Formats: sequence, structure tokens, C-alpha cells
Amino acid sequence: MIYFDNAATTLIKPDCVIKADEYALKNLSANAGRGSHASAVKAASIVYEARKSVKSLTNCDDVIFTFNCTDALNTVIFGTAKRGGHVVTTVYEHNSTLRPLTELGKRLGVQFTAVTPNNHGIIDPSDIERAIRPNTYLITVNHASNVTGAVAPVAAIGNIAKRHGILYMIDGAQSVGYLDADMREIGCNYLCFSPHKGLHGTQGLGCLCVRGNPPLAPFRFGGTGTASHTLEQPHDIPEGFECGTLPVQSIYSLIAAITHYNKMSLSTKRNLSLCGDTLREELLKIRGIKIYGKYNNLPNIVCFNIDGMNAASVGDILSDEYDTAVRCGLHCAPLGHKVLGTINTGAVRASLSYHNSLSEVEFFVKAIREIAK
Amino acid sequence: MIYFDNAATTLIKPDCVIKADEYALKNLSANAGRGSHASAVKAASIVYEARKSVKSLTNCDDVIFTFNCTDALNTVIFGTAKRGGHVVTTVYEHNSTLRPLTELGKRLGVQFTAVTPNNHGIIDPSDIERAIRPNTYLITVNHASNVTGAVAPVAAIGNIAKRHGILYMIDGAQSVGYLDADMREIGCNYLCFSPHKGLHGTQGLGCLCVRGNPPLAPFRFGGTGTASHTLEQPHDIPEGFECGTLPVQSIYSLIAAITHYNKMSLSTKRNLSLCGDTLREELLKIRGIKIYGKYNNLPNIVCFNIDGMNAASVGDILSDEYDTAVRCGLHCAPLGHKVLGTINTGAVRASLSYHNSLSEVEFFVKAIREIAK
Repeated sequence: MIYFDNAATTLIKPDCVIKADEYALKNLSANAGRGSHASAVKAASIVYEARKSVKSLTNCDDVIFTFNCTDALNTVIFGTAKRGGHVVTTVYEHNSTLRPLTELGKRLGVQFTAVTPNNHGIIDPSDIERAIRPNTYLITVNHASNVTGAVAPVAAIGNIAKRHGILYMIDGAQSVGYLDADMREIGCNYLCFSPHKGLHGTQGLGCLCVRGNPPLAPFRFGGTGTASHTLEQPHDIPEGFECGTLPVQSIYSLIAAITHYNKMSLSTKRNLSLCGDTLREELLKIRGIKIYGKYNNLPNIVCFNIDGMNAASVGDILSDEYDTAVRCGLHCAPLGHKVLGTINTGAVRASLSYHNSLSEVEFFVKAIREIAK
Repeated sequence: MIYFDNAATTLIKPDCVIKADEYALKNLSANAGRGSHASAVKAASIVYEARKSVKSLTNCDDVIFTFNCTDALNTVIFGTAKRGGHVVTTVYEHNSTLRPLTELGKRLGVQFTAVTPNNHGIIDPSDIERAIRPNTYLITVNHASNVTGAVAPVAAIGNIAKRHGILYMIDGAQSVGYLDADMREIGCNYLCFSPHKGLHGTQGLGCLCVRGNPPLAPFRFGGTGTASHTLEQPHDIPEGFECGTLPVQSIYSLIAAITHYNKMSLSTKRNLSLCGDTLREELLKIRGIKIYGKYNNLPNIVCFNIDGMNAASVGDILSDEYDTAVRCGLHCAPLGHKVLGTINTGAVRASLSYHNSLSEVEFFVKAIREIAK
């Protein structure tokens, strides 16, 4: 089986991640931050170590562990909301940003502007700046589009956010593990991602990284293991934002995933770029193939259509006849597909990871060539 | 090490649960409900099977998978909220119910009445009924107190809820896996629990069971893999409530956990009751021990204090000198501790599971006897 749906989740995990998860399940999964007995303290120390790993990865001040990236994005969007305020974002956002913003419109009259990309498919920072209004309190930008892989000029936008004194969030769902996501360099206040994608961690965990003590109101309310005498939710980061039991095994395996990523050889990274570039170049040679997003792309995402074919049909043939997994349709990113002109047809997304090989790419290109005939 | 903190989380998981988690991580963890390729379909079928398992366990119509029980409780409390409405609950609720209700008071002016138990430490259904007001829209009751283990007369309260046409939620965090939690028999609309407690599943998963098509508005907003063209959150259960990637490995291991629970021998269950009863009876014989909640208790929770000692000190001695884990303090249940008169001292909670033995109970009783001297 060829798995080219790594932008949805990386199916193949490093051994060290699987072993860490299993070890924690067997030995370490007490309730972190609840109770002072040895096993609870040990679990808490694992969570502490994982926070340190994430801090070193993203250069953040603190980390809130969540259910997934969507949960992290919701926490920021609802936790920074200002009645009657305005948010600047882009058409490349996932529904995990666009739908909470739409809901905010109903609850608090928050409006948002979704900036469109330039002719090269890239968000222009000056368009972000032009979209700012006097009541804009948040800029939120997808670091890399999950549709085309287009990378946003996040540091330039960071300068704009700083200059205007506006909070700034990055959706790092697709970027973390493939691009540098240093919050200081980007100049953002919040960075959300989920380890089960580019970092090849396990599902069931999201990370909300914060930097520079930005405002944040709790999204979920409940037991925090702190200030238990009061019915008021503590607002401390991270405790006030981590109600209920955390998944210690996923958090322990995140340490392994980050260690694995940090130790990754240059040749592994180069292999991914080579695979992605080859895929892109070889698909372009096939008659009737249209590729979306040609400039400044993630190394691992190639999005395309075959003339006259519905994306879903291409995906079905790939799955049924070539045992190959891609993601077809709208990728939960309707505004991006509207701009690409693919809102009705969808598109085929092939997304690679470090485990894919050039021979898989060759097989895939051959398959597409046959389907396109 | 003796682990008597199973009400926080069960540290020792059955082999089948660990193996299932590991197998799913290695082989099955595509993105369930996202994409139509074979591995995504396989992941979706696992989620479907897990829903079936939960349905057969709780007699519910549908299951929403969440981060943990707190996340499930938040989903119902915020998803049923009525501006200016009133909620009836009990002092035995966990902060995962009380804190969202407190927040609702600020957001929408929702008020709540927390009913106190009778002299036997049990909630009287007639007190629930007396607390109902014309604007009461929800009754929410902790099936079993996480402090004393006191079991609420949930079916009798269910009759009251039905008679008054009021929505009814059960917090099954402590009960599921130790008591029957059949939603039809209870007559509730929502039942929340987390598999990592009584069912000995893994952390990082909660279940929100619904029955009888009750109203529910989404709590989290984002990609659902459905209706991707629209920025409006679908309200379908479960899709509209499961935004972002689900933890397939935890969901797969839940099937194993429920199978393991269903196959559990009568002697295993009797052993737990014997251990709990023995612990309770033997502690009562020690001078200066006060036990909280003597009637209609869970088999596995015994909550007590030693005269003149702070609960935390007892816990520290147990951990340091006896390598024994209990949970001391307020157990995130401040109103219950107020009623018990332990809001300043806290209490010691010993909570057992099916893995504990009578010899551990004997060791523990001896330890408490020595500490109490």
C-alpha cells in the first residue's frame, strides 16, 4: 500500500513513538497533576518534560495540551474573542478556523476578512495589512495550506501584527515537522499544531503554544487539580486550560517524536524534498494534469486534478486499483477551493512524509498517467 | 507499589487494552472519516465498531467521542444552555460540572441549585423535585460521588425529569465499569464517562452518550469531513461534534476494554466488593478514623480522615513510607467537601479497581493503623 495522505495524519509512526506509547501505557499512565503520590508525580514530570520538548521546538513560553489541533484553534479563537471585533485571516484557512470564526459572528458579532492569495498563490503581507480595521484584534494565518501546501510569509505578517498591536495566531497543523516554526522568529502569540501529522506522533493530542503572555480565556471548564475549593475556573496557563485527565501515553510519545525529528538526518529531509519535487515535476509532464499552487510550497504536498475527471473518482481508482491512499474533495478548506476554482470538483491531494520513497513516487506517477489516459 | 487511586485513573490496564492500542498505532491509525481510501475506511470502521460497543454497554442511541469526561460534560452543559434558565444538580458534582455551570451564569445568567444529600449521605429524589423551577431545563447528577462513592438514585430522578419534561444528564465518570449505567433504565438523555477509569481503557478519550434525540448544539467547531463546502458547523450527531482527528488507537482499545469488562468473571467482581467492604470495615475498627459516606456506596471507594491529621500528610506518609498511592485533598469536588465538613482538611480517598487484592487491603489497613497511632 502506498500512503500519500500524510497531511491528514501520518499513518506510519517511528518505532520509538510506538514503543514510548506502549511503555507509558504499561508503566506511567497515572493521572498527571492530580495527587502527590509517586506515580502521579512521575506522570506530571513526563508532562513537564514534554512541555520542555515543545518549548525547544517552537520557542514558546508555555504549552497547553489539547485534544487535537482543532481544539487548540478553538481555544484561541473563543478565548480571545471581542464582541463586535474583527479578525483578519486568509482563504487558505481550514474549517477548524473558519467555522469557529463563523460561530463567533453569531455569538458576538465578530466579523472576519479572509485575504485571497496573489497570482502566485501566496498570501501577500500587504493584503493582510490592508484588511486591518480599527477593531481588528486578531490575525490568524495558516502557516501552510493543507490544500496546495502554499507557505505563508508568516514572519512578515508578524511584523505587521506587532506594528499594529494585534494578536497573532499561526495554524501550524501542516507546517510543524516540515518547516521551522519558531514563534520568536514568526512573531506570533499562539501556535497550534497536532503531533500526529508532521511530527509523526500519536493521535489524540494537540498543542497550543503561547508566547509573550497574551490574553486567553478558558475554553473548557472543570477540574484542574488547582484551586479546587473554588467554582471559578483558574486562568493560569497551562493548568486552567487542561481540565480533566491528560493522555500521558500520547504526551510521553510526543517527547520521542520530537527527539526523533530533531535527530532526523539531512538525507531523510532531502529525500522528502526530492520525492515531492519529482512528483510535482513528473505530474506536470502528463497531459491534462493541472497542479494547484506552484510557488513556495511545502515539500510534501502536491494538489492536482485530471482534466474532465472528478477528484473523488481519481481517488477511488487509486485506492481500488493501485492500493494507493490520497485525499480527494475539499479538504475542509472551502474558501481555498473557491479561489482555486475547484469548489465543485474538489481536487486530489497527494501528501508525502519522511517514510515515502522515490519508487513510490514513480509508481504513483505511472498510475496517474494511466488514469489520465 | 500499592495503587489505590483508581478513581483518578486506573494505572494498570489489561493486556488486551495495551495490545489493541499498540496494534492500532502500528496498523490502523489513518484518519477516520476523512477520505475514502482503504486505510481511512478501515479506521472509520473501527470507530463504528467502538460506537456499537458503547451502545451495547450504555443502551444509548449514539456516541460522541471527546477528549475526556470533562470535555463531554462541557459539551452538554454548553450545548443545552438556555439564557436565563435554571439547572438542578447536586453538591456531589465534580468541578467538571460545577465550573461550566458557574461560567454559564456569567455568560447567560443561568442559575443552578445544588441539592444536598440526606442524613445517610444520599441524594433524595424528592429534594431534586423540590428544586425544580418553572425555568429549569436540565437536571444533571453525578451517578456516583468521586469523594465518598455515594450512589445517586438515578432512575428515580429520571422519572422526575421525564414527568417534568426536563433534560437529564448523568456524570458516569465513577460509575461506568463498576455499576450498570443503562440509559433506558436511568431515563437520561446524556451520559458522560471516560474509558480510562472503570473500564480500564486508555487516557485521551471521553464518551458522550445520547439517547432519545435530545437537543445539543456543537461545542467545538471545525472540520467534520462532512458538508465541507459550508462554514456552518453541521449539527449532526456524532459528526458535528467530532471536529478534527480522533484518536483511533484509543478508540480501538476501547473496544478491547469493553469486551474485557463484559467477559469479567463474577469472582473478579466479587473480589472487588470484598476488598472494598473489608477496607471499610477494618478502617472503622481503628480508633480516630472517620469514614465519609456509609450507605449505598460504590464498591471501590472508601473516603476517610484520621483525627487530628491533615489528609495531605496522611497521603504523603503513605506514599513515602508505604509506597502506596491514594488521593488526598478536595478531589475537585468543593461542595461535597463543604457538606462533609472537610473543606479545610480535605480527606483521604482510597479507590480500588479489579486489579487490587485482599493482601493489599490488609497492608493498607496496617499502614493506616500505624499512622493513626
